[in-house]
Amino acid sequence: MEFKINNDYFNKAISDVSKAVSTKTTVPLLSGIKIIAQPDRITVVGSNGDIAIERTLPLIGEGNKMIEVYSPGRVVVSAKYISDIIKKLPYDIYIKVSDNQSVTIKSGDITTKLNGIDGSDFPELPKFDVHHSITMSSEDLIGIIKDTVFATSKNETRPVLTGVNFTFEEDVLTCVATNSHRLALRKYRMKSPLRGSFIVPSSSLIELSKLFGGHKANLEIYTSENNIMFKSNNLSFYSRLIDGTYPNVAGLIPEDTSTILTLDTRELLKGIDRASLFASEWKNNNIVFQITDESKIRISSNSSEMGQIEEIQHVKTISGAKDLTISLDGNFMMDALKAIRDEEVKLCFNGTMRPILILPVGNDTQLQLISPVRS
Amino acid sequence: MEFKINNDYFNKAISDVSKAVSTKTTVPLLSGIKIIAQPDRITVVGSNGDIAIERTLPLIGEGNKMIEVYSPGRVVVSAKYISDIIKKLPYDIYIKVSDNQSVTIKSGDITTKLNGIDGSDFPELPKFDVHHSITMSSEDLIGIIKDTVFATSKNETRPVLTGVNFTFEEDVLTCVATNSHRLALRKYRMKSPLRGSFIVPSSSLIELSKLFGGHKANLEIYTSENNIMFKSNNLSFYSRLIDGTYPNVAGLIPEDTSTILTLDTRELLKGIDRASLFASEWKNNNIVFQITDESKIRISSNSSEMGQIEEIQHVKTISGAKDLTISLDGNFMMDALKAIRDEEVKLCFNGTMRPILILPVGNDTQLQLISPVRS
Repeated sequence: MEFKINNDYFNKAISDVSKAVSTKTTVPLLSGIKIIAQPDRITVVGSNGDIAIERTLPLIGEGNKMIEVYSPGRVVVSAKYISDIIKKLPYDIYIKVSDNQSVTIKSGDITTKLNGIDGSDFPELPKFDVHHSITMSSEDLIGIIKDTVFATSKNETRPVLTGVNFTFEEDVLTCVATNSHRLALRKYRMKSPLRGSFIVPSSSLIELSKLFGGHKANLEIYTSENNIMFKSNNLSFYSRLIDGTYPNVAGLIPEDTSTILTLDTRELLKGIDRASLFASEWKNNNIVFQITDESKIRISSNSSEMGQIEEIQHVKTISGAKDLTISLDGNFMMDALKAIRDEEVKLCFNGTMRPILILPVGNDTQLQLISPVRS
Repeated sequence: MEFKINNDYFNKAISDVSKAVSTKTTVPLLSGIKIIAQPDRITVVGSNGDIAIERTLPLIGEGNKMIEVYSPGRVVVSAKYISDIIKKLPYDIYIKVSDNQSVTIKSGDITTKLNGIDGSDFPELPKFDVHHSITMSSEDLIGIIKDTVFATSKNETRPVLTGVNFTFEEDVLTCVATNSHRLALRKYRMKSPLRGSFIVPSSSLIELSKLFGGHKANLEIYTSENNIMFKSNNLSFYSRLIDGTYPNVAGLIPEDTSTILTLDTRELLKGIDRASLFASEWKNNNIVFQITDESKIRISSNSSEMGQIEEIQHVKTISGAKDLTISLDGNFMMDALKAIRDEEVKLCFNGTMRPILILPVGNDTQLQLISPVRS
């Protein structure tokens, strides 16, 4: 393998695929990046077993000749060392791999020799049926992820809850995340040639958001029994799926509510942030939410040792029972409100023991549930 | 104690003095901020026993009436809680302390009660002889700190080496830091009414740089037997001094050198950064520095397992012996070069076993020494 490549062009690609490489693994192959030279392109791949990122570099980039391939081939090198050196090289980079997998990297008067890793066991990228795919903009996908991923469980005892459940139906994609104390649901209207339900690990979705946050693109989404792929023109993101059956959440969503309030979303978020001052002393970040009269609520937290805080906010509308005091997890409430971009939010209560339903006003694609704290 | 104050004005002051409050201390008093209300000003003080920061707030700030003092007094409150809440309050803040040291903080419809801490043992600020002081701009002082503090020792076995030694003579201030493997010396020409030698802890100097980095000012410097104070108009920074005798470093600075090179400072820094790729595998971040011919040097590092790197740089001038191969700590070299703002740097060698002397070209106020690594 032998080629010459523009240093910035190569650096961006190495930096993209490095995101998939685990820095903590003890398996040397999973700490490597695979570089493949073909006559018409260079491809780089990073993988940690859970996710993989593949970046294809055509010979021409941004209208300029970026690559000259003298001889095709492939090699796996340490992601850490190749990333560290490539980003510091000031000129075009010349790379040659010798028969013993020693990789020579030259740029101007700088010469690096990196010992290659035997790549024969480097993870193969999953295969997909390319006839069924969905198209979505990276911005929409990242929006859906932001609206749900925070509600996944951090606890591995129920693996399915550590992922976001994507359900594709004819006209709609529904994404749900829950840790069994809170739930976030987001609908996205689309014509979908794909059907079925897939649980994508939250860690994969977070990496996916970072990757495509820097590359706005139209994505094609492909699925197989065990994997999912998000593909733009020259960049593909692969993730394993979580095996198992996702709980049916439809039954959790209350149909009746005894009290409905509407409030200013940002003001409520700021108020809960302030009122949480003493909440962190409690296991569940307890704050107390109370309706004080026809037009006001009181949000408070207290610590017997340090002090107490309370604030009064005016509600925009109120309907139903006006006698309510409920303990909530302040952090869950803040996460929920941060995911709402609409100006007004509706809080639907059903007594002090039942979950509260949180809905943006004027937007029926988003729904959240938070269970009260038993205090 | 009872007063009203503009929220932003108060928040900046609390944020400044919080820098002196230890978050790790188990002594409640050292986790507190003292607030003093007097008819003509509010004063806030944070202290962790090693450093203290005092901020005075006049009633008028930026041309506006910022404070109304209804009744003078003093209180100590938790730095963590007061900082957290003050920065989130949207309107003017009203503060009242009751007889039982309960502090009520109101802003609009937000009411906080913080339990005060008994302040009778809050550390007293040190006293100074106000007749002898030095004046220096905060930018110059921060420059001197940046040029030296990195070279202090991180190891507490010789406490004096964990500080920077400030020596005031009639016409010059000399600052020295060394960890016994490297040394940084900086001279600053000034008329000094103060005489003597003081060792200031590196941790204090780093906090001082952060504090005055955000407040450009003319500083007055006062010293006493055990303390030093840096004072601007409304902001004072106090630090304890390190007790002990600083080593006489004059004898360490070589008078003869066998080889002198001049190089481009930034290029050399970048080259050493790259050439350090495999240095971190070694205890002393070993890089090898070699003169290869009349006009070139070679910088390299290697790891038997991972690979090797080398780069050739052209020197600007060379004089003396041209046969030299020396092992150096790459991190020490980078720290040294980062502290040099001049375009060219002179490296003076005296064989492979003696420290190298690093001097900016055209600037005789700065000098650094680095001992070679015995490889």
